[in-house]
Amino acid sequence: MRDHGGDLDRARATYGGADWIDLSTGINPVPYPMPDLPHHAIAALPTAQDIAALEGAAARAYGTGAQVAALAGAQGAIQLVPRLRPVRRAAVLSPSYNEHAASLSAQGWEVEAVASPTDMAGADLAVVVNPNNPDGRCWTPEEMAALADRVGLLVVDESFADPHPELSLAPRLAHMGERAIVLRSFGKFYGLAGLRLGFAIGGTETVAAIRALAGPWAVSGPAIVAGTAALTDATWRAACCARLADDSARLDALAVAAGWGLVGGTALFRTYDAGNARAAQERLARAAIWTRIFPYSDGWIRLGLPGSEAAWQRLRAALPGAT
Amino acid sequence: MRDHGGDLDRARATYGGADWIDLSTGINPVPYPMPDLPHHAIAALPTAQDIAALEGAAARAYGTGAQVAALAGAQGAIQLVPRLRPVRRAAVLSPSYNEHAASLSAQGWEVEAVASPTDMAGADLAVVVNPNNPDGRCWTPEEMAALADRVGLLVVDESFADPHPELSLAPRLAHMGERAIVLRSFGKFYGLAGLRLGFAIGGTETVAAIRALAGPWAVSGPAIVAGTAALTDATWRAACCARLADDSARLDALAVAAGWGLVGGTALFRTYDAGNARAAQERLARAAIWTRIFPYSDGWIRLGLPGSEAAWQRLRAALPGAT
Repeated sequence: MRDHGGDLDRARATYGGADWIDLSTGINPVPYPMPDLPHHAIAALPTAQDIAALEGAAARAYGTGAQVAALAGAQGAIQLVPRLRPVRRAAVLSPSYNEHAASLSAQGWEVEAVASPTDMAGADLAVVVNPNNPDGRCWTPEEMAALADRVGLLVVDESFADPHPELSLAPRLAHMGERAIVLRSFGKFYGLAGLRLGFAIGGTETVAAIRALAGPWAVSGPAIVAGTAALTDATWRAACCARLADDSARLDALAVAAGWGLVGGTALFRTYDAGNARAAQERLARAAIWTRIFPYSDGWIRLGLPGSEAAWQRLRAALPGAT
Repeated sequence: MRDHGGDLDRARATYGGADWIDLSTGINPVPYPMPDLPHHAIAALPTAQDIAALEGAAARAYGTGAQVAALAGAQGAIQLVPRLRPVRRAAVLSPSYNEHAASLSAQGWEVEAVASPTDMAGADLAVVVNPNNPDGRCWTPEEMAALADRVGLLVVDESFADPHPELSLAPRLAHMGERAIVLRSFGKFYGLAGLRLGFAIGGTETVAAIRALAGPWAVSGPAIVAGTAALTDATWRAACCARLADDSARLDALAVAAGWGLVGGTALFRTYDAGNARAAQERLARAAIWTRIFPYSDGWIRLGLPGSEAAWQRLRAALPGAT
């Protein structure tokens, strides 16, 4: 398996110990309260009605009038993107989430890593993660819409956009035909990554192609029940956004006090320049706190948000310069 | 969406009413008891260790030393089968589960429906459902192994084989290289179809290709927890097989008393010749019992097993000739 956050197995194997705090992902550590699961949600095949209700809730939450297909996580969409157009040349924003380039390459695409959307013109398929993981770079919907005019198919992965809805291209997709699709993650913002739920949003033909490739019953009953409830709950969403904003500011303050510089991030994770990233990761790992570093940077370390006051205190005590 | 069993939405829309008994699928109506879900199973991404433990449990349950990949239902494998070999000509046993031919055709294969495995020689890819749905035809592992020698890739869908382990090709796959794969459904026998879990079993290269196409985290935390527990529970499996054998014999007795002839089936469903299948389905639907009929037969009606004594009594009272 490719290198990922969430590989706490490996941290345990290397450093031993129990009671780890996993800050290696950008998953919200305070999940949406899991609803009780009715019998049919686990025992029966999902019905077309149940899936349509979930997709309708997603369309309203993401503010889009375009087509929405429920998939097994944003990753479920990433696996299918290479099949949406004839295999040619793709431009993928870099550095970013490594699964986009990996999935395209594995399925025969020539993949060019580019540093900026301005370098993507003419690509048959272009992938931008907005806001970007791990550096938090972001682009306006106007910039993304303009980019869609200059490439074959624009894929905007908005896996971390829930706390930043002003960035989303989803509200414009109903007027963009088959030129762009948006991928959304359910599990990250709602803290329910184990359920495997995400969405692809776009034009009628492109989303029909995605549905055909995914097949019927691509998402589970538990994902449908939790997803429909959570995406309909605007009150929880607003409170969660406020808490994430507070907590990401708190994390920045701790990092700055530790002598780290902010590279960027979203309300769900923050990336810092620690000088020696490997040493910083090891220091925290010895305190049973797991983080993410990157093969392309000696300095960058990415941290998700602690989920409890006890976790915040352990992180504070483990950082350089703690007293 | 293509025509399927499990479309109780449509029955409700047509016939109204509540408290339907859904006999339109071959899903065991007495599920494996759903384990409590630990927090990490819904909140965190599945770990490589958790997925490996599930796949190990599946390998032991299915008696195979070959590679095993967990997927989102047997359907998750059916969606990927067309990509395992260059697109050419496939032979699909017919009549059978319609998703095999549909998935291959949609992904560019020339699909020939054949009446018997003996007509498959020379196909680039061949699909047999064993035991077959809906007619219950079945073939020995020796017959399937011999067929694998005569086609490019043999795909044996054993979605209904749990109560009939003597039919399974899975124990031989470790010695068959890349010539055959077996698909298994978890949700049908264990009565947990909403969780979306199934497996592809086969040679190292073919299963590696399946894993690469499915991507990481193709199955959910709830599916991993329930699947690992259920597939390890040989006591439950044995008791379930005994009950299914009794219940399918009981269903046959009711059908024969109603004047229907047995076409065939498995321990999870039975297919009868009712003379006028549409009239038989409507008769039962007026008693809020939903069944499955087939576009290619005027006479065949398929029934799953009732899950409670009350359901048995309602079925008995609704059948022709009931007193």
